[in-house]
Amino acid sequence: MGQDQSSVFDLAAVAAASNGGNNDPLLPPARFIGDPQKPSKMPYNKYAAYDKQVPFDYPQRTWPGKRLERAPRWCSVDLRDGNQALVNPMDSERKLRFWNLLVSMGFKEIEVGFPSASETDFDFIRMLIERELIPDDVTIVVLTQCREHLIRRTYEALRGAKRAVVHFYNSVSVLQREVVFRKNKAEIKQLATDAAELCKSLESEAKGIDLYYEYSPESFTGTEPEYAVEVCNAVIDVIKPTPDHKMIINLPATVEMTTPNVFADEVEYVSNNLNDRDSIVLSLHPHNDEGMGVAATELGVLAGADRVEGCLLGNGERTGNVDLVTLGLNLLTQGVDPQIDYSNVPEIRKTVEYCNQIKISERHPYAGNFVFTAFSGSHQDAIKKGLEARQMAADRAGADLDSFVWLVPYLPIDPKDIGRTYEAIIRVNSQSGKGGMAYLLKTNHNLDLPKRLQVEFDKIVQKYADDTKKEVKDEDIWRLFKDEYLPVESGGVTAAGKIVGDTSDETLHQWGRLKLLKVAVSSGEDGSDTVLKATLLDRGTEEGAEPTKREVSGIGNGPIAAFLNAVSNLGISVSVMDYAEHAMTAGTDAMAASYVECEVGEDADSQVIWGVGIDSSITTSSLKAIISAINRSER
Amino acid sequence: MGQDQSSVFDLAAVAAASNGGNNDPLLPPARFIGDPQKPSKMPYNKYAAYDKQVPFDYPQRTWPGKRLERAPRWCSVDLRDGNQALVNPMDSERKLRFWNLLVSMGFKEIEVGFPSASETDFDFIRMLIERELIPDDVTIVVLTQCREHLIRRTYEALRGAKRAVVHFYNSVSVLQREVVFRKNKAEIKQLATDAAELCKSLESEAKGIDLYYEYSPESFTGTEPEYAVEVCNAVIDVIKPTPDHKMIINLPATVEMTTPNVFADEVEYVSNNLNDRDSIVLSLHPHNDEGMGVAATELGVLAGADRVEGCLLGNGERTGNVDLVTLGLNLLTQGVDPQIDYSNVPEIRKTVEYCNQIKISERHPYAGNFVFTAFSGSHQDAIKKGLEARQMAADRAGADLDSFVWLVPYLPIDPKDIGRTYEAIIRVNSQSGKGGMAYLLKTNHNLDLPKRLQVEFDKIVQKYADDTKKEVKDEDIWRLFKDEYLPVESGGVTAAGKIVGDTSDETLHQWGRLKLLKVAVSSGEDGSDTVLKATLLDRGTEEGAEPTKREVSGIGNGPIAAFLNAVSNLGISVSVMDYAEHAMTAGTDAMAASYVECEVGEDADSQVIWGVGIDSSITTSSLKAIISAINRSER
Repeated sequence: MGQDQSSVFDLAAVAAASNGGNNDPLLPPARFIGDPQKPSKMPYNKYAAYDKQVPFDYPQRTWPGKRLERAPRWCSVDLRDGNQALVNPMDSERKLRFWNLLVSMGFKEIEVGFPSASETDFDFIRMLIERELIPDDVTIVVLTQCREHLIRRTYEALRGAKRAVVHFYNSVSVLQREVVFRKNKAEIKQLATDAAELCKSLESEAKGIDLYYEYSPESFTGTEPEYAVEVCNAVIDVIKPTPDHKMIINLPATVEMTTPNVFADEVEYVSNNLNDRDSIVLSLHPHNDEGMGVAATELGVLAGADRVEGCLLGNGERTGNVDLVTLGLNLLTQGVDPQIDYSNVPEIRKTVEYCNQIKISERHPYAGNFVFTAFSGSHQDAIKKGLEARQMAADRAGADLDSFVWLVPYLPIDPKDIGRTYEAIIRVNSQSGKGGMAYLLKTNHNLDLPKRLQVEFDKIVQKYADDTKKEVKDEDIWRLFKDEYLPVESGGVTAAGKIVGDTSDETLHQWGRLKLLKVAVSSGEDGSDTVLKATLLDRGTEEGAEPTKREVSGIGNGPIAAFLNAVSNLGISVSVMDYAEHAMTAGTDAMAASYVECEVGEDADSQVIWGVGIDSSITTSSLKAIISAINRSER
Repeated sequence: MGQDQSSVFDLAAVAAASNGGNNDPLLPPARFIGDPQKPSKMPYNKYAAYDKQVPFDYPQRTWPGKRLERAPRWCSVDLRDGNQALVNPMDSERKLRFWNLLVSMGFKEIEVGFPSASETDFDFIRMLIERELIPDDVTIVVLTQCREHLIRRTYEALRGAKRAVVHFYNSVSVLQREVVFRKNKAEIKQLATDAAELCKSLESEAKGIDLYYEYSPESFTGTEPEYAVEVCNAVIDVIKPTPDHKMIINLPATVEMTTPNVFADEVEYVSNNLNDRDSIVLSLHPHNDEGMGVAATELGVLAGADRVEGCLLGNGERTGNVDLVTLGLNLLTQGVDPQIDYSNVPEIRKTVEYCNQIKISERHPYAGNFVFTAFSGSHQDAIKKGLEARQMAADRAGADLDSFVWLVPYLPIDPKDIGRTYEAIIRVNSQSGKGGMAYLLKTNHNLDLPKRLQVEFDKIVQKYADDTKKEVKDEDIWRLFKDEYLPVESGGVTAAGKIVGDTSDETLHQWGRLKLLKVAVSSGEDGSDTVLKATLLDRGTEEGAEPTKREVSGIGNGPIAAFLNAVSNLGISVSVMDYAEHAMTAGTDAMAASYVECEVGEDADSQVIWGVGIDSSITTSSLKAIISAINRSER
């Protein structure tokens, strides 16, 4: 080890020993909600805060006030950093499949391997070059450590390529300088500049290749930013990039060690202090150890980075490289073109999971199974209203809905834009309110329930969900709805609760007391003298009674009033509180759905209850709705 | 809808239509690595940037220069927000199991349900209260919307509780005001203050309960911060908290809509503009739609938040609530006590996965299967050196290793501190260099290979990995090592390549030409005249030759030199280039491992090759190592 500093362990131990002051309970003196939190037994004195390891502040920072305005240049490292972190690294077949996916999505820079470390990588690169699989506008990047035999082998791998980036790196962190390399700062810098010089000298062997360089001060997050800049500038001075032939300086958050504000400060500092900045593409290579890789990247781009390296869906060593899919689609939600085609996320996911042999989580942003699923009733209700409001606004603007501005509560992106569908959005379980059920009935069955009917039916769904403690699926809701509201032909339950006819699960509906057999309505010009004659099958109210045919007639200012008048002949008192009806589809042969809120019975015994009817006739459907309410009231 | 603004759709559509300027390729004029990225066909003009929806800037911000120094107050919402997002919500058994886990970890505030929305939640809360399952220092939180019948039902759920927080919320965002509630700002504020007043008036029914309040301006991230403060302050003015009896103002990032710097600005603004700030506990409730929930929380705490709501391992609606495990352990890595016991992450994970019936990803920070696994050779090598350096530093300091400061490359936390183990750290595959293999041989077999031997053996492992394209497991490495270096008793391959004896996979080792049967060494005081007599079994170099016993002797300045001299009688020319030996365990009966780098053969035909020997005698082990090298050279 060089003699230019004390051991990192001694420094860190002193720092960690002073941690005690950071760990007082938050609000010791004030009485608030019982006792304050208590100290745990976690060994916090074993860890030194990041800024005690790498002291740095950058009050000149400008990034906090900035916003994302354009896509950075992307580089996929799936075939290298991602691949090296797999239990079973990809064979050529899987690698080629991943390569084809990346090219088809629009990636123009793809790191294809570490050819001097793995024969599989070497062979794959040779295959890409020899079989001419690299499109003219795509550039391959190959990684190598700053070691002579590895660099030489890297150039061998590139023979015959049209264009390539040679990416050389060495670790420059405080810790690795001491414990891995046992070299001082000058010696570590020398490793980098020696590598740069060797690369330059090997250019004669790379004739015909349009050659670029990338240098990474590896473990950048564990490095004094001032020293990282010193090393990078020394490399830049050797490579001598120009604005017309830039080089990449890539800052790896090899291990994520701090909050992203600190990382952004470091990036802005580096960006402002590199030599020949207009000849440099400043790149980030974040990992996700603290679960903040996406944020570190976005703040780093605000801080001046031009380019980002990552993996699709966040594969990579340990917790993974930063997830390019999330970064790209975050940009889209801000109205910025990601310049990568993420229009088929399910297909991307399928290929990535196949190639990596790792499943992503159900809650993975944009790609997980559950991310377009709202389970909460209030969320579902808001989504339904939001979709309707958006439709109305698009109609108002005369705009095409698919391209109309997307603003829907709880859905930050239109699932359609990334190849996903609304159908999967809403599930219903015992936590859900009426919104989800209403949405499903509307989407799948064209039934647009009035609000108070939603409230009523919700209780039925809710009880079912609470009883079974399972997700209530669409088919369950439809079955519950039919059971409850729609009279059937083939079977059901008598007014007295006896089950008759076909009562298999699919057709177990409540027939109840009355069934409409025939109806004739005549009315004058304005309907005020409507006469209605109906033939009903009436099971009566007695257990075991045989159904009898009843002819009834009535007069009113419309068929509903006339029908209410008619059924009063059966001793049934009904008045209508609310009424709604709509066509279930477009066209002249559409079915109509009617919803009637009725008060059935008189005075203290009366109950307010909804009925639903469906028929090709709007008249019959409303009469059926009234019968539905009557039957329900007598159950 | 109120008349105090235009429709959000119209405003957003205008903003989105102006997006074009944001989407120029990054570096159009400069030639750099082929063509620049091309525009995609993603519909970016459908989305309005966050700051065009909610314009806000806060140049007074101070949070970017701050660092995390203490744990916030934690509240688990696993039993409410987490539970409501499950396909199959928890039954009582699973809920109680989760509750017990949270209590045992040290959570003092636990949101237990939305009792007015679900009978299951109501019943669970009654069970906690009636069966006295709530420790004295733990406070339950119950959620309700700002609606009268729901609030009343909430108080019913609390009867008999010792202490509770009533958490009421309403959505205040620009979008939800228009499309869900169709109310203007004043009307939405009124909903909140009406609820606050109802809560106050119901206190008479909550006698005996030590009652606190929490108010959430839901969809805070979609709300003008100025208006959110206005609503919160109106609620505060009704509730009238005091420094001795605070209330919680909770800011939900119901949907994550922006980079966390903007969120932190908003939090700092709210923190600085709340009435009676010293009577308020400012809380965050972040979600993870853009994959930045952890970062938003940490920056929000820097910006002034006192309290955080989240779920273990990030369960919750869509992409989940913020992950409390990651937040807590991030603090630990900064030397801050999380004040929650995360010492057994595998057990936490097991219970959470059981209760939620959702698996976490292999790369989940701290808890995923792969996060303490280094696949890359250079990472493995650095970890090995880091562990050794830490051991040495601890010894130097006379410190206990388990509590000594943790600084190891690529491992931001000591796996032991969270109940995980080193054994799982390193796997080896075709991407790995010598470090991983060396680490495994040292950890599991007490063999500390010299560096050049690592390089040599690495090629053998690498070839095996490249050939099989599978993960190379510990047992594979050990088998390969034995095959290659250690002579065996029962079977093997002759010098000519013939397999003899027991050659099952487990015992297929290379015996080769020579086998040591007996050895006698005598030497003077300083070893310079060592005489060695050895009995060897020699298969010769001919195919199918019968082994013959050979007695050889030699003299030298030590047993190795004497043995080299002795085998020269067999026509074998060997010189030793390097030599290392170590005890494999502590104690007098330890075995010794010897490693000898030999040049075998003469001049142009010679090869430099390592041999390894293991024996209870340090002499015999080194002779076996030489024989190992000779046998290998003749294969």
